[in-house]
Amino acid sequence: MSEDNQLITRQDDAGVARLTLNQPRSINALSEAMLLALQSMLDDIAKDRSVRVVILSGAGDHFCAGHNLKEMTAAREQGDGGFDYFQALFATCSRMMQTIVELPQPVIAEVSGIATAAGCQLVATCDLAVAAEDARFATSGVTIGLFCSTPMVALTRNLSRKHAMEMLLLGEFISAQRAAELGLVNRVVPLADLSRETMDLARRIADKSLAAIKIGKTAFYEQAQMSLSEAYAYAGRAMAENMMARDAEAGIGAFISKSPMPDWTGE
Amino acid sequence: MSEDNQLITRQDDAGVARLTLNQPRSINALSEAMLLALQSMLDDIAKDRSVRVVILSGAGDHFCAGHNLKEMTAAREQGDGGFDYFQALFATCSRMMQTIVELPQPVIAEVSGIATAAGCQLVATCDLAVAAEDARFATSGVTIGLFCSTPMVALTRNLSRKHAMEMLLLGEFISAQRAAELGLVNRVVPLADLSRETMDLARRIADKSLAAIKIGKTAFYEQAQMSLSEAYAYAGRAMAENMMARDAEAGIGAFISKSPMPDWTGE
Amino acid sequence: MSEDNQLITRQDDAGVARLTLNQPRSINALSEAMLLALQSMLDDIAKDRSVRVVILSGAGDHFCAGHNLKEMTAAREQGDGGFDYFQALFATCSRMMQTIVELPQPVIAEVSGIATAAGCQLVATCDLAVAAEDARFATSGVTIGLFCSTPMVALTRNLSRKHAMEMLLLGEFISAQRAAELGLVNRVVPLADLSRETMDLARRIADKSLAAIKIGKTAFYEQAQMSLSEAYAYAGRAMAENMMARDAEAGIGAFISKSPMPDWTGE
Repeated sequence: MSEDNQLITRQDDAGVARLTLNQPRSINALSEAMLLALQSMLDDIAKDRSVRVVILSGAGDHFCAGHNLKEMTAAREQGDGGFDYFQALFATCSRMMQTIVELPQPVIAEVSGIATAAGCQLVATCDLAVAAEDARFATSGVTIGLFCSTPMVALTRNLSRKHAMEMLLLGEFISAQRAAELGLVNRVVPLADLSRETMDLARRIADKSLAAIKIGKTAFYEQAQMSLSEAYAYAGRAMAENMMARDAEAGIGAFISKSPMPDWTGE
Repeated sequence: MSEDNQLITRQDDAGVARLTLNQPRSINALSEAMLLALQSMLDDIAKDRSVRVVILSGAGDHFCAGHNLKEMTAAREQGDGGFDYFQALFATCSRMMQTIVELPQPVIAEVSGIATAAGCQLVATCDLAVAAEDARFATSGVTIGLFCSTPMVALTRNLSRKHAMEMLLLGEFISAQRAAELGLVNRVVPLADLSRETMDLARRIADKSLAAIKIGKTAFYEQAQMSLSEAYAYAGRAMAENMMARDAEAGIGAFISKSPMPDWTGE
Repeated sequence: MSEDNQLITRQDDAGVARLTLNQPRSINALSEAMLLALQSMLDDIAKDRSVRVVILSGAGDHFCAGHNLKEMTAAREQGDGGFDYFQALFATCSRMMQTIVELPQPVIAEVSGIATAAGCQLVATCDLAVAAEDARFATSGVTIGLFCSTPMVALTRNLSRKHAMEMLLLGEFISAQRAAELGLVNRVVPLADLSRETMDLARRIADKSLAAIKIGKTAFYEQAQMSLSEAYAYAGRAMAENMMARDAEAGIGAFISKSPMPDWTGE
């Protein structure tokens, strides 16, 4: 078993890759090694045509407690007080988060227990999120003097301004139910049903044409950063290209002739 | 009766123009002819000073089922497999959607039954939307291999990210009540009251000064694409110009002297 | 007592500065003098290291009714019908609103009674807002022929599009409860508890490191206007700088050693 597999486990099941942060004793903290392992696994999945959907979960009772503060504190011994290390660490973390956004396959966060700081950012960054009833979310850095500025980037692209600002300024936990109301997670389920519900959601997406999903997920985040007219020009091209895909031709043909949907080729 | 009138009917009543997509047998599909007819009617209304508010509804039990897939499939016979046709079709559709955004008069979607794909986009694009309790909304293209990339442009400018992503990835229906919670529609009313409630809403807007409404609606979408300082510079000019309008002078004067509001001149 | 103190009162209590708009007979209208007084007090607070949080409230039964329409109407006597005056007035108001956004310290709106037009904008502009159960909010300019175009800038950065458009086109009041649902205010409390609840919220923020809060609040609004990759590059630098602050070092150290949080130095 490689070190990556020790830090993060991967199980594949019918096109669904489940990645489990596997350091429950550190509440699955995003240490430098954990970030690099996750980056590596995401890079692999990006090229892996057998994967249609990714589930990201945490081993043990909790999802993820964010950065590894002990490791960060150790870097203060360096000549510059750790500044270069911190810059590089946050760049590494931000690159991993953006890799989730840029991944062709949708990523679903499966959250039980706590998701704090960069752990909360991970939930906000995933395309979809399912929370157990016991899940709790906080951007808690402010309570120890370190404002959650990078988690904020993902949080503010999910929540409305006053809700995001309240979480960031107070650093207090919100419940799973409140997270659903605010748009941070898509649904809340009993803890006993969590992995089954997430897998059900993943399967419903894995049943779709991966060609369509890839075009759509990429377009989702690209067009969000454009003006309305640019967004329409971009999305119109994306849709015309999608029409040329074999899956779209077969799927639309089946729809018109009231036949069952084809086995998607993913192309 | 012109072909436009056959595809879409228009009824005017005291400054409110009701446009009804009138192809219930195709669930009011946005065929090329339907898109051009709607474009033409919107272009007329943009110049028509008698129209203060537009209602957009569908004949029959449903609002609109999106693009006409049979017509699109026929274009696959062309030399390029239809690519140029598809590009042009989505450009035509996107132009019509942006014409609603740019129209000086507010447009209210009145939705019963289903609003799917580009039909759902039409709801998202309108300035306001009223739904009957039976209305259902979906960006369903993904289920037939064609991701709703152009509907996404309008959808993501109404809903928060995870809610929009869920609709786009699953392609499943959401209820009118859920659409109201997510911000896709403004209110949900019993089906029996739908046209009366929409007309009531339209009248409350038609009672206002069209000069103020035009300045405001244009500014709404323009400033949304600007940085905060640009938006304030733009909106400050818009408000100073609004102050110079005859209606603002008369309205503010009436307010200060506690008189009834004047008959608006629309200037 | 200076004129500033007459128009707006300031009370400081353990790092919390309470500014009270103090013209209840004009429903705390944002006259030119009021805008300049508020600008001056905010400019002072920006440099005042003793202030960690600002509360903005209104004397009397209401928060703020927006611009002073009588004063504006008087300017119509000028040679240009007041156009230059109106431009300057809206620029003055927009500068004050942006000063709240740029202020290093968080600003909490405390709202009872009505908050209309630029008064509603003030609520939307503050970082957080607490409303009494009796509070009501409207962008009512449209009812007197003057669309709330500058309030719209703040409103649309808080609410989803259809909700904001409905408030702007109808100009009707929404309740405190509805304002909370739409994201315009953070919480609704009984009127009798309003100032105590706001102060409690302010104290929970004032208890944090001002160094972290300043970095975070600035980053919040800056990154919101950037693309995702720009936002991450910016926020990563902000976090690395935050790590170098004395408070972060002390706070993280205390967290790791399970000690109580230190007395923050604000640096």
